Amino acid sequence: MTIDMCRTSTTRIETALDRFFAGRAQKAASYGPDFAHLWDLTAAHSRGGKLLRPRLFIDVLEGFATEAVLPDASAEVVDRLAAVQEVLHYAFLLHDDVIDGDLVRRHQPNLIGTIRDTHPEAPAGASLHWGTSTAILMGDVLLSTAVLECARLPLADGPREQVLDLIDDAITETVAGEYLDVGLSDRVITPTLDTVMTMTTLKTATYSFALPLRLAAVLAGAPAGIDRALAQVGHHLGFAFQVQDDLLTMFGHHGAHGKDVRSDLREGKQTVLVSHARMTSRWEQIASVFGDPDITDADANRVRTAFEEAGSRSFAEDLVSTHLGEASRILDEAALPVEVRRVIAECIARLEFRSA
Amino acid sequence: MTIDMCRTSTTRIETALDRFFAGRAQKAASYGPDFAHLWDLTAAHSRGGKLLRPRLFIDVLEGFATEAVLPDASAEVVDRLAAVQEVLHYAFLLHDDVIDGDLVRRHQPNLIGTIRDTHPEAPAGASLHWGTSTAILMGDVLLSTAVLECARLPLADGPREQVLDLIDDAITETVAGEYLDVGLSDRVITPTLDTVMTMTTLKTATYSFALPLRLAAVLAGAPAGIDRALAQVGHHLGFAFQVQDDLLTMFGHHGAHGKDVRSDLREGKQTVLVSHARMTSRWEQIASVFGDPDITDADANRVRTAFEEAGSRSFAEDLVSTHLGEASRILDEAALPVEVRRVIAECIARLEFRSA
Repeated sequence: MTIDMCRTSTTRIETALDRFFAGRAQKAASYGPDFAHLWDLTAAHSRGGKLLRPRLFIDVLEGFATEAVLPDASAEVVDRLAAVQEVLHYAFLLHDDVIDGDLVRRHQPNLIGTIRDTHPEAPAGASLHWGTSTAILMGDVLLSTAVLECARLPLADGPREQVLDLIDDAITETVAGEYLDVGLSDRVITPTLDTVMTMTTLKTATYSFALPLRLAAVLAGAPAGIDRALAQVGHHLGFAFQVQDDLLTMFGHHGAHGKDVRSDLREGKQTVLVSHARMTSRWEQIASVFGDPDITDADANRVRTAFEEAGSRSFAEDLVSTHLGEASRILDEAALPVEVRRVIAECIARLEFRSA
Repeated sequence: MTIDMCRTSTTRIETALDRFFAGRAQKAASYGPDFAHLWDLTAAHSRGGKLLRPRLFIDVLEGFATEAVLPDASAEVVDRLAAVQEVLHYAFLLHDDVIDGDLVRRHQPNLIGTIRDTHPEAPAGASLHWGTSTAILMGDVLLSTAVLECARLPLADGPREQVLDLIDDAITETVAGEYLDVGLSDRVITPTLDTVMTMTTLKTATYSFALPLRLAAVLAGAPAGIDRALAQVGHHLGFAFQVQDDLLTMFGHHGAHGKDVRSDLREGKQTVLVSHARMTSRWEQIASVFGDPDITDADANRVRTAFEEAGSRSFAEDLVSTHLGEASRILDEAALPVEVRRVIAECIARLEFRSA
């Protein structure tokens, strides 16, 4: 079920993550054995992902390095900044799981589920509350530690300020997107197609694609024009990636993608698929089970067919193609080193044929 | 109901907070009107507190300034660092309210309660979920922004690194304390007196007292011995402050302190009072209603009497005196400027006679 979108070996990033968590484990231990254990548990749960963001970052940076010496991109800075991106991603996942009430990730109990199951003797509700509260608190530590790590990078003032600005934008934008997402699911924000598309870009595209590309540009000392082009490419890729995610959850093979097809429906998640279907005559059929916590497999199959008949599936698939095409176009026009272009083009090609 | 523990006029700090929130409002507005409105709402809800931390910080710093020129303490740096401490405090409060399920603060709906009430037409549960999720997300933005603000202070590398280290310690320590607090309330951690006392120090003392004192020492360029003394003084004051808070909630005048006497009992909050009483023969009487969501006023009165008869009230009061006395002793022995000593001594005196 892995998606091999980048070239970097995962070992390098895992070593960098080991170093990050080990460095903080000593600090955690000074607050007693309970907190030390929690830190180790959190470190273990942060693993198992695709490492998409740090890999893209390193691959692109290595592309830049083929054509110039990069004085700001020491191995130490690159590794630490790669780890930061994964830590930031996991901090968002932790708070996402709290907000969505999810206890499982990648077919395994997540941190909340694991902590809940640690004390089966605790009063009903208390162990879940403990798990949820812990996920909020550990998300806080990881989020602030990720920012602190950026602030402490051994960089000159200029690039360090650029890194901080990019992290700042990414966090604020992700939160703004998540806020829209929750408001849409809770039906307090009107789910127009436009709003759902904005939410999709804000929530995922910036921190998952634009951030790794732009951080690489900073360490490469790339000029403003290249940064702008990479930002645009990142937004298009990120938007396509998120819509693909929604498509895979709805129509993909559950075992491959790892997410239950019914979860988005149960939650009443507002996706591009849903906003499109809402404008068609098939909506009534979908609306009857949309947001229903007791949705059955048979319901889910009917909804899937309705999305197809409404043309929502092909609408979303066309959107993915358009955005990937736009990313390619910008990529071709930007004055990028050949290797950077090749790495990103490979990433686009893999997204085009993504099935998990 | 204000507690006037420090000398600084609040106007200066409020202006600094205005500037902080206004600076970020433009950024928020770029993510659409919904998010801009949320930012303004959050800024409004962050007000109304005692501004204890930034006031203590500025008062002590001004004490240092009476005896030396402080090149790192420009008005801009001082104001921004004062605002950061209030923002950090409010970020913790937001996540605290989520964890405790609180909808009210200072007799008014808090951010969660206000957002929940904004959409009475939303499905049952959805508007509360929206409020809670928003508080998690805004806490995240405020927390990361507070750290970013420290990283961006126009300071030389040395003091900036010291500021970052202090903020790092304060965040990790507060989270470690909050984790113990939740585990104790959820009855998954054994409530020994020792654990409860550790939790009390970690959760409040560092960020509320030691942090303001030590940040002032950094900007004053004070030597390590003074920093150590101020750290100890801060921990003693913070511990005393938190135990006083528990005492005031239990025995104080509700209107003055602002917290419902039953709230700690209902929540099953593990305080020094509770851990002491647990070791006495009166515990059975308290245990029967401890953690009961339907506790009545009559129950609360009986529990109060039981705490007094168990000697828990006087035990906690003695603890407060001991820690304030210890703070005074360290203060007297430290090589501090006269004005710094006077400011902290005033703070201790006000805590001694605190009634709200």
